[in-house]
Amino acid sequence: MPMPQVPFDDRGLAYGDGVFETVLLRDGVPVLWDYHLARLEQGCRRLNIPLPTSQQLAQVWQSPPAAALEVLKLILTRGSGGRGYALPDHPEPRLIFRRTPFVTNGQRWQHGVCVRLCHLRLGHQPLLAGIKHLNRLENVLARQEWQESHIAEGLLADQSGEMVEATSMNLFWSTEGRLLTPRVNRCGVAGTLRAALLANGVIEEEGLTVSELPQVERLWVGNSVQGVWPVCELLDTQGGLIATWPVLAGPDPLQGEAHRLLGYPSMFPASESK
Amino acid sequence: MPMPQVPFDDRGLAYGDGVFETVLLRDGVPVLWDYHLARLEQGCRRLNIPLPTSQQLAQVWQSPPAAALEVLKLILTRGSGGRGYALPDHPEPRLIFRRTPFVTNGQRWQHGVCVRLCHLRLGHQPLLAGIKHLNRLENVLARQEWQESHIAEGLLADQSGEMVEATSMNLFWSTEGRLLTPRVNRCGVAGTLRAALLANGVIEEEGLTVSELPQVERLWVGNSVQGVWPVCELLDTQGGLIATWPVLAGPDPLQGEAHRLLGYPSMFPASESK
Repeated sequence: MPMPQVPFDDRGLAYGDGVFETVLLRDGVPVLWDYHLARLEQGCRRLNIPLPTSQQLAQVWQSPPAAALEVLKLILTRGSGGRGYALPDHPEPRLIFRRTPFVTNGQRWQHGVCVRLCHLRLGHQPLLAGIKHLNRLENVLARQEWQESHIAEGLLADQSGEMVEATSMNLFWSTEGRLLTPRVNRCGVAGTLRAALLANGVIEEEGLTVSELPQVERLWVGNSVQGVWPVCELLDTQGGLIATWPVLAGPDPLQGEAHRLLGYPSMFPASESK
Repeated sequence: MPMPQVPFDDRGLAYGDGVFETVLLRDGVPVLWDYHLARLEQGCRRLNIPLPTSQQLAQVWQSPPAAALEVLKLILTRGSGGRGYALPDHPEPRLIFRRTPFVTNGQRWQHGVCVRLCHLRLGHQPLLAGIKHLNRLENVLARQEWQESHIAEGLLADQSGEMVEATSMNLFWSTEGRLLTPRVNRCGVAGTLRAALLANGVIEEEGLTVSELPQVERLWVGNSVQGVWPVCELLDTQGGLIATWPVLAGPDPLQGEAHRLLGYPSMFPASESK
């Protein structure tokens, strides 16, 4: 299938005026689709973009799966038109998508990852927080802070010093046995795996400052495509090691629940979600 | 000329990973081009996008002018590729542009405009402030706050209550005869007309809070395409009138200097920049 194109005057290109979703497909069937659709709809409501019709969405599933696991990336822009920032009188949103085969990273599931604290601090914008809109320069800039391939993710705090997320994943930690994740009501993206874990009562929202970060019992990063990676090393913004966590000998409660939702194996023999 | 297109995987579309310029052309010759080029280059440095080559830029001027006044819109994206937010190893930026005839709004130059204070408050992100990047959802949301055609612009404060700009123009005011403009080092766009007025010593940077706004001697909005519009009516975020300024009987010092730089007439007979 040829790669979709958008014209010069598409507002997604001009202003980042749109939203996107990155969806795991197993044998062509979307995983956590209800959560993706809910976030897409919330993004449309927040930005005042007409929702895609069922017919538009149906075309996404028409082609047969090219691999057991695929990633579907779906971009919905407000379409063309309008004078400058002013909206077009009759918006015709543009829905484009692409499916590519995906391979999971079992090494990271099992042995955990090294992450680095980013220098960039996310700005607050409650009107855009949580939704997966196309204005992602903060993530692009943060991702430029390291090149080392052994660093799997960068952790982002906001301008108040509150931890928010990783550049393309959500952040999870445990304290006194509780599984927690930061709020994303001032900045950050409300990931669909995070949403599913909240809805299932596995995790709760709580605050965590940059200075508290190295002291947490356990730390994880995760999303609906990659699953959950335990963090075993934390580097500061200069690349210095500031905390380590041993690999769990027993079941990983967060990964177990998350991977059950995603249909991924849990790496620990004793886990109920094996 | 057919409208340029970008592919699905262009990072300008995917993440707003790029910059743009909107340039006034008089008889095919760009006005304030040095300032546009300087901002484009600053944007590229800030985002770590390779600068366009002279050959790339030269194609912009190849076609003969379609009208005495045109607007050139130029978009430079980081191009395609990279894994997620991570940059491509060998970025090939994409430069696309479009020229459209332009007509000035002499009514607004002469009689001034009504502006409205926006409810949306700009978030702080010093790493992106000033440059004309493609992440413009705040502007799009702010522009949705009014539909009335007699409201020419919306004024934007930041989350600290400091005035910053208008949705697609910079903001200027006078106090005790001094011509002033807000800093744009935490949010906002450093307009090229604003830059030229600063470089020529016409205006100075200063702070102005939302509550001080209705008390200023005079207020203007302006940019390098539209020129300078005096503000004669200010509405609050609910649409209520909170300040008025009479049309100047004599020369307008800010519009005079600005329009001299842009090659536009000044609307007041006694102005030196007639």
